[in-house]
Amino acid sequence: MRRILFLKVVAYDTMNEAIKEYLNKYKDRDTELEARSLAVGPKYLEYQFYQAAAGAGILKEVLRAEKDGFDAVVTSCFDDPFLYPAREISKDIIVTAPGESSMNLASVLGSRFSVIVGRDKWIPQMRENVYKYGFGEKLASFRSLGFGVLDFHRDEELTLKRMKEEIKKAIEKDYAEVIILGCSMQFGFYRELQKEFEVPVIDSMIAGLKQAEYLLELKEKTGWGFSRRGLYERPPEKEMEGWKLEEDFGLEGLLL
Amino acid sequence: MRRILFLKVVAYDTMNEAIKEYLNKYKDRDTELEARSLAVGPKYLEYQFYQAAAGAGILKEVLRAEKDGFDAVVTSCFDDPFLYPAREISKDIIVTAPGESSMNLASVLGSRFSVIVGRDKWIPQMRENVYKYGFGEKLASFRSLGFGVLDFHRDEELTLKRMKEEIKKAIEKDYAEVIILGCSMQFGFYRELQKEFEVPVIDSMIAGLKQAEYLLELKEKTGWGFSRRGLYERPPEKEMEGWKLEEDFGLEGLLL
Amino acid sequence: MRRILFLKVVAYDTMNEAIKEYLNKYKDRDTELEARSLAVGPKYLEYQFYQAAAGAGILKEVLRAEKDGFDAVVTSCFDDPFLYPAREISKDIIVTAPGESSMNLASVLGSRFSVIVGRDKWIPQMRENVYKYGFGEKLASFRSLGFGVLDFHRDEELTLKRMKEEIKKAIEKDYAEVIILGCSMQFGFYRELQKEFEVPVIDSMIAGLKQAEYLLELKEKTGWGFSRRGLYERPPEKEMEGWKLEEDFGLEGLLL
Amino acid sequence: MRRILFLKVVAYDTMNEAIKEYLNKYKDRDTELEARSLAVGPKYLEYQFYQAAAGAGILKEVLRAEKDGFDAVVTSCFDDPFLYPAREISKDIIVTAPGESSMNLASVLGSRFSVIVGRDKWIPQMRENVYKYGFGEKLASFRSLGFGVLDFHRDEELTLKRMKEEIKKAIEKDYAEVIILGCSMQFGFYRELQKEFEVPVIDSMIAGLKQAEYLLELKEKTGWGFSRRGLYERPPEKEMEGWKLEEDFGLEGLLL
Amino acid sequence: MRRILFLKVVAYDTMNEAIKEYLNKYKDRDTELEARSLAVGPKYLEYQFYQAAAGAGILKEVLRAEKDGFDAVVTSCFDDPFLYPAREISKDIIVTAPGESSMNLASVLGSRFSVIVGRDKWIPQMRENVYKYGFGEKLASFRSLGFGVLDFHRDEELTLKRMKEEIKKAIEKDYAEVIILGCSMQFGFYRELQKEFEVPVIDSMIAGLKQAEYLLELKEKTGWGFSRRGLYERPPEKEMEGWKLEEDFGLEGLLL
Amino acid sequence: MRRILFLKVVAYDTMNEAIKEYLNKYKDRDTELEARSLAVGPKYLEYQFYQAAAGAGILKEVLRAEKDGFDAVVTSCFDDPFLYPAREISKDIIVTAPGESSMNLASVLGSRFSVIVGRDKWIPQMRENVYKYGFGEKLASFRSLGFGVLDFHRDEELTLKRMKEEIKKAIEKDYAEVIILGCSMQFGFYRELQKEFEVPVIDSMIAGLKQAEYLLELKEKTGWGFSRRGLYERPPEKEMEGWKLEEDFGLEGLLL
Repeated sequence: MRRILFLKVVAYDTMNEAIKEYLNKYKDRDTELEARSLAVGPKYLEYQFYQAAAGAGILKEVLRAEKDGFDAVVTSCFDDPFLYPAREISKDIIVTAPGESSMNLASVLGSRFSVIVGRDKWIPQMRENVYKYGFGEKLASFRSLGFGVLDFHRDEELTLKRMKEEIKKAIEKDYAEVIILGCSMQFGFYRELQKEFEVPVIDSMIAGLKQAEYLLELKEKTGWGFSRRGLYERPPEKEMEGWKLEEDFGLEGLLL
Repeated sequence: MRRILFLKVVAYDTMNEAIKEYLNKYKDRDTELEARSLAVGPKYLEYQFYQAAAGAGILKEVLRAEKDGFDAVVTSCFDDPFLYPAREISKDIIVTAPGESSMNLASVLGSRFSVIVGRDKWIPQMRENVYKYGFGEKLASFRSLGFGVLDFHRDEELTLKRMKEEIKKAIEKDYAEVIILGCSMQFGFYRELQKEFEVPVIDSMIAGLKQAEYLLELKEKTGWGFSRRGLYERPPEKEMEGWKLEEDFGLEGLLL
Repeated sequence: MRRILFLKVVAYDTMNEAIKEYLNKYKDRDTELEARSLAVGPKYLEYQFYQAAAGAGILKEVLRAEKDGFDAVVTSCFDDPFLYPAREISKDIIVTAPGESSMNLASVLGSRFSVIVGRDKWIPQMRENVYKYGFGEKLASFRSLGFGVLDFHRDEELTLKRMKEEIKKAIEKDYAEVIILGCSMQFGFYRELQKEFEVPVIDSMIAGLKQAEYLLELKEKTGWGFSRRGLYERPPEKEMEGWKLEEDFGLEGLLL
Repeated sequence: MRRILFLKVVAYDTMNEAIKEYLNKYKDRDTELEARSLAVGPKYLEYQFYQAAAGAGILKEVLRAEKDGFDAVVTSCFDDPFLYPAREISKDIIVTAPGESSMNLASVLGSRFSVIVGRDKWIPQMRENVYKYGFGEKLASFRSLGFGVLDFHRDEELTLKRMKEEIKKAIEKDYAEVIILGCSMQFGFYRELQKEFEVPVIDSMIAGLKQAEYLLELKEKTGWGFSRRGLYERPPEKEMEGWKLEEDFGLEGLLL
Repeated sequence: MRRILFLKVVAYDTMNEAIKEYLNKYKDRDTELEARSLAVGPKYLEYQFYQAAAGAGILKEVLRAEKDGFDAVVTSCFDDPFLYPAREISKDIIVTAPGESSMNLASVLGSRFSVIVGRDKWIPQMRENVYKYGFGEKLASFRSLGFGVLDFHRDEELTLKRMKEEIKKAIEKDYAEVIILGCSMQFGFYRELQKEFEVPVIDSMIAGLKQAEYLLELKEKTGWGFSRRGLYERPPEKEMEGWKLEEDFGLEGLLL
Repeated sequence: MRRILFLKVVAYDTMNEAIKEYLNKYKDRDTELEARSLAVGPKYLEYQFYQAAAGAGILKEVLRAEKDGFDAVVTSCFDDPFLYPAREISKDIIVTAPGESSMNLASVLGSRFSVIVGRDKWIPQMRENVYKYGFGEKLASFRSLGFGVLDFHRDEELTLKRMKEEIKKAIEKDYAEVIILGCSMQFGFYRELQKEFEVPVIDSMIAGLKQAEYLLELKEKTGWGFSRRGLYERPPEKEMEGWKLEEDFGLEGLLL
């Protein structure tokens, strides 16, 4: 079995069971799934400060997941906060995130994608990621619903209605061929949207999970993993030990 | 079981068994693999004309694979010839290719990759693909061995020696973090190279196969497949019928 | 005299005379023009598969043109299918195509151009070409008429009306300074459109012909032709002979 | 007087006085300078994890600086960690960082710049920033000294010698017109290098300080400050209060 | 005191006093400001020919300013005509211009900016500058008022009304976070616009002045100035003397 | 007959006859060629200031050429100084320049080109043009000879030797497929270089002339000329008359 942790990088756990149940429908049969969230912090990460505040928790949970024997962890927020540091500092665990995995996939399924976001606020930082990952020319548009993260499941019919309006424009005006739902909390809607518009509508939660399984499979079979040269070169343990980073950051037993 | 066809898009079948055997070590247990090659055409595709000459054969074999009930086909040449038309014209089958799958993967495993090619001739067309897929900023370099496609397995020790020389330069001078072996005929070498340099060395044959499995898994679980809007919109059957494309191109029973 | 073949890369010859007559008004006095089309294949190439199906025919006709003593060939479809392989495999003949020639010209005549296309379907592949040729920053927009290739001359008044609507938007909303008619079948309309909007409106058929004359003139006077290093390096004849490519692809007497 | 905090974003304070003294030679006469560093954390930030570990401290110190009545804060590490979140979460204080300020300046002083880094490891993340800020085409090269952050002042003569070797190559081989010393700990060397090579050699510490003064001056005279739409939209206080972010992150009295 | 010349690069001096008075509110207390304009030439520079016609005058006035002991000169037209040659030919004086200084500043204050221009005609050349300076990805849009340069102060209420309409669209439709008024003659309006929209609205005249002060301050403290390698390498005096450029171009006593 | 003026944009006429004789070998039989140069100014334009000094002369000569009944003018300096203003201000004459025409041509003849320049100084401004014209991705390299403009014909054997050294590197190290001689004074060498390296070596003088003939031919046959919207919109005559630009700039009888 491959043990994968779905890490909802926000500070409430009331949805963890529902999410796990949802994802269990999509996981590989060899995957054993667990869902965790952060102990403290914001309830969603649409501000950069909220992401920063969640940072220590995210890294700690990734390291703890590794300690706990997980094979992979999906750090679930579409902005992919701390994805690169998490890969750098962990030893061997696979780390994925919904933004990178959704965009990589979308770039294969069609020539241009649109990202449906909650609020305009999200766009500048996401655009940064789109370019960072190499998909600037494949971005058809961002389309904004005018919803906060916590609004998506308040009135699901209204959410669907607004999503449909914006997806229609993304397809017809911006020539999007693939739609990405740009927030992991937009989970659960993709099937109906996909049925209506007959283009792939990517649920980023699922995309993160499946990329984790994909990378795990590759690692087991071929040894391909995150390169330890450059971007993901790991800090020297002796140095971290000397600086007492474990103690100072509540990471006892996790770093070294 | 998922039936995947590994389509060596050249006109000799003497290596098909060896390739199948090789890939069987990497396939998922649910995958049933078959290897085919083209009936007529060049023995490798390092010229654009050779690719063009192979085009009809590639498309026919993809369509035939679909007819024969395969779930996916890997069209194996690193230049990805006719990948987009194959996706456009097939009905439901997953089509992957080594270039796209290797680069997508490399872009996740590190910040920059180098592609080890056989001859300088290959570079302009591959560079075109690198940019087309969005990875222009992630390309550290092309490094050329001065070998033709059919030379790689003539003197494997010499091949390894030359590969090591160029990979060393790619890593040290060009800051490559991931290495891609830019020809499917460079199969079989990656493990030793990976061991020596301690960075992921991508065997593009395996990359193509594994991406096919990944996309199959996604399609089964979520229905995500190639978007039928825009790039992969399929031609109308009535039109193809009216023009007798099946008859004229030896595709009887394959198109409609 | 310079003999130029206008190769309509589709499978009907009923318009060849009309096209030849049309182009004769634009040719240089030293040019002797002939119009040919393909023996089999689709009637237009708006799908990638159709282009692929036409590929063997295009390359054969280019090689035959060379054999027949033509000095240049214009392969006429705005997507420029098989332009690069045709240049690679021919020995000495000049090969041009409407997309490349129109965009090169437009980039000199103003700061941004729009391409008027028939259907949305055409856009992804054309955009790819725009970027490949270097004109991504010079693209004001694509504007789509909602017409198939064969519709342009059905009701020419309607075609003109729709063209005018979209060109007006391209100029006023997208700041296009030059208009390209993105299908060779849009021939014959440019003068009236140019008169109405007072910007250059490029008929891509004419653009392809005139660039052929231009490159011929340059070759004769200076010896400048397609570089035989890299992109257009020709395959070795001995190899093609050994593989019997002439026989297998119906190219007897054309390749070697 | 304008009170500016120079925040060395590492966890030792032994150099604070020396740095303050050094910077006092460069400050505007209206500037009153203070130097602080972090309470806990790494001693330098060349790994992404180290930056992440320093994140909470950086943001806390920026907020505390605002509380303490500073007008601006320079967060000093060339990778500009948490620059954007710091601007987003602070209310009114000017936040600058050495990377952004050095590159903005260099882009005005010449057509291309090179960045002299300590180790190859730094390059991928810095390159990301170069592109993010818009200066991809203005980057001549990175040149690496093979030194860690703490090595620069161990044997200053050796440091200078190595710097001179790499700057010479940057100018002669990479056509750099401006040199940036890509680590704030490379302070103190620029004058001699500038004298030798007769091109601007930017000390990033000074660049950060002077940009802070510049932005302060602009704000006072014109009201121009960080836009509160999009990238730097501040989170709603009520929400942060409701989630008890102050308490949970040791930011009592700083956020609201 | 630092003496800065504000050079209105057009041929009328009736507004010089008003401009000086206006800018005196924004200058540093150490700055002594003078305003000059050209002796002959166009009254505004919205055509490239007008800029070319003003070129000799601009360069002469920059050189004369240096001779007259000014420390810096702001060449005020948003297209930054002859900015690079002015920096190249002057010996030691700081030269700034409103376009470069406004965009550099805007790129720090938010993630994307829009430029409000008078007429569509201005856009192609300004876009060229935006890309040249590196800010192509930071450009949200150009928005055009349909006003000529001399119209801005004819009916200021109307000007404000039109500005507000376009700024509103720039913010809401194009996601601009910062607004640049793309003509120095749009001076005086920024405060009210800024108040209304609560985003920075950059008056490019002021931006040019303040960047001049900033660069002067840097030069005095650190010796950083325009690099004399490459772009700003000065022509050899002996050569200019031999060619009698001073005499031929009315630059007696200014070049050598 | 088409009358084309070859305008050597420097201030000596001793080579005009030789150049005319040289170009007469390359012109179309319908072309009647004249060579002029500027009355005053620098002897070459490798500095931006020199170009600026030549500006008034260039524009005057273009306007005079139009007055004198020329159909086209080639403004010959590889930096293309004042090309865009010349097109904007002239009424109907075709204006070409060696940089734009060489690069447009090179982009068709192969996938990447290198530009052989005289001195490093030339590179920043030329690179700017390469990007402006859209060919950033097609630039293999600049290679510098270490020669000033006036040195090329001093010791032609030495010049050839140095050219060969750098072209060899451009082809082998930078993968150039086409070579551009980046200074019109490098005329006369291309044939031998082309013979030696078997790639097109573009003489930019000839390229400018032939593009002029090409554009003339297009204009006569189709009416395509520089778009008068946007970049090349001409200033209103009434305005220029009111401002007395003719008198003030010695353009009597040329502007209106």
